[in-house]
Amino acid sequence: MRVEDIKFDASGLVPAIVQSERSGSVLMVAYMNLESLLLTLKTGETHFYSRSRSALWHKGETSGNVQSVVRVLADCDGDSLLVLVQEKGPACHTGEKSCFDNHEPLELN
Amino acid sequence: MRVEDIKFDASGLVPAIVQSERSGSVLMVAYMNLESLLLTLKTGETHFYSRSRSALWHKGETSGNVQSVVRVLADCDGDSLLVLVQEKGPACHTGEKSCFDNHEPLELN
Repeated sequence: MRVEDIKFDASGLVPAIVQSERSGSVLMVAYMNLESLLLTLKTGETHFYSRSRSALWHKGETSGNVQSVVRVLADCDGDSLLVLVQEKGPACHTGEKSCFDNHEPLELN
Repeated sequence: MRVEDIKFDASGLVPAIVQSERSGSVLMVAYMNLESLLLTLKTGETHFYSRSRSALWHKGETSGNVQSVVRVLADCDGDSLLVLVQEKGPACHTGEKSCFDNHEPLELN
Protein backbone atom coordinates (compact mmCIF):
# COMPACT_ATOMS: atom_id res chain seq x y z
CA MET A 1 0.00 0.00 0.00
CA ARG A 2 1.18 3.48 -0.79
CA VAL A 3 0.72 6.73 1.09
CA GLU A 4 -1.71 7.86 -1.62
CA ASP A 5 -3.91 4.87 -0.82
CA ILE A 6 -4.40 5.75 2.85
CA LYS A 7 -7.98 6.71 3.57
CA PHE A 8 -8.02 9.71 5.85
CA ASP A 9 -11.39 10.40 7.47
CA ALA A 10 -13.59 13.47 7.01
CA SER A 11 -11.28 15.37 9.39
CA GLY A 12 -8.22 14.32 7.40
CA LEU A 13 -7.06 11.90 10.09
CA VAL A 14 -6.26 8.23 10.42
CA PRO A 15 -5.77 6.38 13.72
CA ALA A 16 -2.19 5.26 14.34
CA ILE A 17 -1.58 2.40 16.74
CA VAL A 18 1.91 2.56 18.20
CA GLN A 19 3.37 -0.79 19.18
CA SER A 20 6.72 -1.54 20.77
CA GLU A 21 8.66 -3.77 18.41
CA ARG A 22 10.62 -5.28 21.27
CA SER A 23 7.89 -6.06 23.79
CA GLY A 24 4.86 -6.17 21.51
CA SER A 25 3.02 -3.81 23.88
CA VAL A 26 0.52 -1.43 22.40
CA LEU A 27 1.89 1.86 23.68
CA MET A 28 -0.66 4.43 22.53
CA VAL A 29 -3.26 5.37 19.98
CA ALA A 30 -2.97 8.73 18.27
CA TYR A 31 -3.94 10.29 14.97
CA MET A 32 -1.98 11.25 11.88
CA ASN A 33 -2.87 13.60 9.09
CA LEU A 34 -1.03 13.40 5.78
CA GLU A 35 1.61 15.88 6.91
CA SER A 36 2.42 14.02 10.11
CA LEU A 37 2.53 10.70 8.27
CA LEU A 38 4.98 12.13 5.74
CA LEU A 39 7.10 13.63 8.53
CA THR A 40 7.09 10.28 10.33
CA LEU A 41 8.31 8.49 7.21
CA LYS A 42 10.84 11.19 6.38
CA THR A 43 12.39 11.65 9.82
CA GLY A 44 11.99 8.12 11.18
CA GLU A 45 10.40 9.49 14.35
CA THR A 46 6.70 9.50 15.12
CA HIS A 47 4.72 12.65 14.42
CA PHE A 48 1.02 12.97 15.08
CA TYR A 49 -1.77 15.46 14.79
CA SER A 50 -3.18 16.57 18.12
CA ARG A 51 -6.94 16.88 17.86
CA SER A 52 -7.17 18.83 21.12
CA ARG A 53 -4.48 21.33 20.16
CA SER A 54 -5.18 21.27 16.40
CA ALA A 55 -1.46 21.08 15.78
CA LEU A 56 1.29 18.80 14.57
CA TRP A 57 3.03 17.01 17.37
CA HIS A 58 6.49 15.46 17.32
CA LYS A 59 6.30 12.78 19.99
CA GLY A 60 9.05 13.33 22.53
CA GLU A 61 9.90 16.83 21.35
CA THR A 62 9.49 18.14 24.89
CA SER A 63 10.06 15.01 26.99
CA GLY A 64 12.86 13.53 24.91
CA ASN A 65 10.92 10.28 24.74
CA VAL A 66 10.97 10.02 20.97
CA GLN A 67 9.85 6.90 19.16
CA SER A 68 12.11 5.58 16.39
CA VAL A 69 10.05 4.10 13.61
CA VAL A 70 10.83 0.54 12.59
CA ARG A 71 8.00 0.31 10.08
CA VAL A 72 4.56 1.69 9.34
CA LEU A 73 1.90 -0.73 8.14
CA ALA A 74 -1.56 0.05 6.83
CA ASP A 75 -4.44 -2.33 7.37
CA CYS A 76 -6.42 -4.09 4.64
CA ASP A 77 -8.77 -1.12 4.23
CA GLY A 78 -6.06 1.52 4.41
CA ASP A 79 -7.94 3.33 7.15
CA SER A 80 -5.70 2.60 10.12
CA LEU A 81 -1.96 2.47 10.66
CA LEU A 82 0.23 0.26 12.82
CA VAL A 83 3.51 1.93 13.74
CA LEU A 84 6.21 -0.38 15.08
CA VAL A 85 8.70 1.61 17.13
CA GLN A 86 11.72 1.46 19.37
CA GLU A 87 10.77 3.70 22.24
CA LYS A 88 13.24 5.74 24.27
CA GLY A 89 11.06 6.17 27.32
CA PRO A 90 7.48 6.04 28.53
CA ALA A 91 4.84 6.59 25.86
CA CYS A 92 2.27 7.99 28.26
CA HIS A 93 2.19 11.48 29.69
CA THR A 94 1.45 9.83 33.06
CA GLY A 95 4.93 8.27 33.02
CA GLU A 96 3.65 4.78 32.28
CA LYS A 97 5.32 2.78 29.52
CA SER A 98 2.00 2.39 27.77
CA CYS A 99 -1.16 4.49 27.86
CA PHE A 100 -2.99 1.23 28.53
CA ASP A 101 -0.94 0.39 31.63
CA ASN A 102 -2.08 0.77 35.17
CA HIS A 103 -5.78 0.55 34.44
CA GLU A 104 -8.17 -2.08 35.68
CA PRO A 105 -9.95 -3.95 32.89
CA LEU A 106 -13.42 -2.68 32.07
CA GLU A 107 -16.23 -4.66 33.64
CA LEU A 108 -19.97 -4.52 33.70
CA ASN A 109 -21.18 -2.82 36.85
CA MET B 1 -11.83 3.18 34.53
CA ARG B 2 -15.51 2.46 34.19
CA VAL B 3 -17.71 2.13 31.15
CA GLU B 4 -19.32 5.47 32.05
CA ASP B 5 -15.91 7.13 31.80
CA ILE B 6 -15.28 6.09 28.19
CA LYS B 7 -15.27 9.08 25.88
CA PHE B 8 -17.18 8.22 22.75
CA ASP B 9 -16.62 10.65 19.87
CA ALA B 10 -19.22 12.87 18.20
CA SER B 11 -20.47 9.82 16.30
CA GLY B 12 -20.77 7.82 19.51
CA LEU B 13 -17.78 5.64 18.66
CA VAL B 14 -14.44 4.74 20.16
CA PRO B 15 -11.62 2.93 18.33
CA ALA B 16 -11.00 -0.60 19.58
CA ILE B 17 -7.60 -2.16 18.97
CA VAL B 18 -7.83 -5.94 18.95
CA GLN B 19 -4.64 -7.71 20.03
CA SER B 20 -3.97 -11.42 20.25
CA GLU B 21 -3.14 -12.25 23.84
CA ARG B 22 -1.03 -15.22 22.76
CA SER B 23 1.08 -13.77 19.97
CA GLY B 24 0.87 -10.07 20.80
CA SER B 25 -0.10 -9.35 17.19
CA VAL B 26 -2.39 -6.43 16.56
CA LEU B 27 -5.17 -8.15 14.65
CA MET B 28 -7.49 -5.34 13.63
CA VAL B 29 -8.84 -1.92 14.43
CA ALA B 30 -12.59 -1.45 14.61
CA TYR B 31 -15.07 0.80 16.38
CA MET B 32 -17.41 0.27 19.28
CA ASN B 33 -20.43 2.24 20.35
CA LEU B 34 -21.78 1.89 23.86
CA GLU B 35 -24.10 -0.95 22.88
CA SER B 36 -21.35 -3.02 21.24
CA LEU B 37 -19.02 -2.40 24.19
CA LEU B 38 -21.68 -3.59 26.63
CA LEU B 39 -22.39 -6.64 24.45
CA THR B 40 -18.67 -7.40 24.32
CA LEU B 41 -18.39 -7.27 28.09
CA LYS B 42 -21.62 -9.21 28.64
CA THR B 43 -21.03 -12.02 26.12
CA GLY B 44 -17.23 -12.24 26.28
CA GLU B 45 -17.03 -12.08 22.48
CA THR B 46 -16.13 -9.00 20.47
CA HIS B 47 -18.92 -6.88 19.05
CA PHE B 48 -18.32 -3.75 17.01
CA TYR B 49 -20.22 -1.05 15.22
CA SER B 50 -19.77 -1.10 11.48
CA ARG B 51 -19.50 2.44 10.17
CA SER B 52 -20.04 1.33 6.57
CA ARG B 53 -23.14 -0.70 7.36
CA SER B 54 -24.35 1.46 10.26
CA ALA B 55 -25.04 -1.69 12.22
CA LEU B 56 -23.89 -3.73 15.17
CA TRP B 57 -21.52 -6.46 14.19
CA HIS B 58 -20.72 -9.63 16.13
CA LYS B 59 -17.25 -10.57 14.92
CA GLY B 60 -17.31 -14.12 13.58
CA GLU B 61 -21.09 -14.37 13.45
CA THR B 62 -20.91 -15.41 9.80
CA SER B 63 -17.38 -16.82 9.53
CA GLY B 64 -17.27 -18.56 12.90
CA ASN B 65 -14.03 -16.74 13.66
CA VAL B 66 -15.20 -15.26 16.92
CA GLN B 67 -12.82 -13.54 19.30
CA SER B 68 -13.02 -14.49 22.99
CA VAL B 69 -12.32 -11.50 25.16
CA VAL B 70 -9.58 -11.83 27.75
CA ARG B 71 -9.81 -8.22 28.92
CA VAL B 72 -10.75 -4.77 27.70
CA LEU B 73 -8.51 -1.88 28.70
CA ALA B 74 -9.11 1.82 28.23
CA ASP B 75 -6.22 4.21 27.69
CA CYS B 76 -5.27 7.11 29.94
CA ASP B 77 -7.73 9.46 28.22
CA GLY B 78 -10.55 6.93 27.98
CA ASP B 79 -10.88 7.55 24.27
CA SER B 80 -9.51 4.29 22.89
CA LEU B 81 -9.84 0.65 23.88
CA LEU B 82 -7.41 -2.24 23.78
CA VAL B 83 -9.17 -5.59 23.53
CA LEU B 84 -7.03 -8.63 24.34
CA VAL B 85 -8.53 -11.73 22.73
CA GLN B 86 -8.09 -15.38 22.04
CA GLU B 87 -8.92 -15.66 18.36
CA LYS B 88 -10.48 -18.71 16.74
CA GLY B 89 -9.35 -17.98 13.20
CA PRO B 90 -8.17 -15.19 10.94
CA ALA B 91 -9.20 -11.69 11.98
CA CYS B 92 -9.14 -10.29 8.46
CA HIS B 93 -11.81 -10.78 5.81
CA THR B 94 -8.92 -11.47 3.40
CA GLY B 95 -8.11 -14.66 5.33
CA GLU B 96 -4.97 -13.22 6.90
CA LYS B 97 -4.46 -13.66 10.64
CA SER B 98 -4.18 -9.90 11.05
CA CYS B 99 -5.51 -7.03 8.96
CA PHE B 100 -1.96 -5.67 9.05
CA ASP B 101 -0.41 -8.81 7.55
CA ASN B 102 0.74 -9.20 4.01
CA HIS B 103 1.33 -5.54 3.35
CA GLU B 104 4.59 -3.89 2.51
CA PRO B 105 5.58 -1.12 4.95
CA LEU B 106 4.72 2.39 3.83
CA GLU B 107 7.60 4.30 2.29
CA LEU B 108 8.14 7.70 0.82
CA ASN B 109 7.96 7.54 -2.95
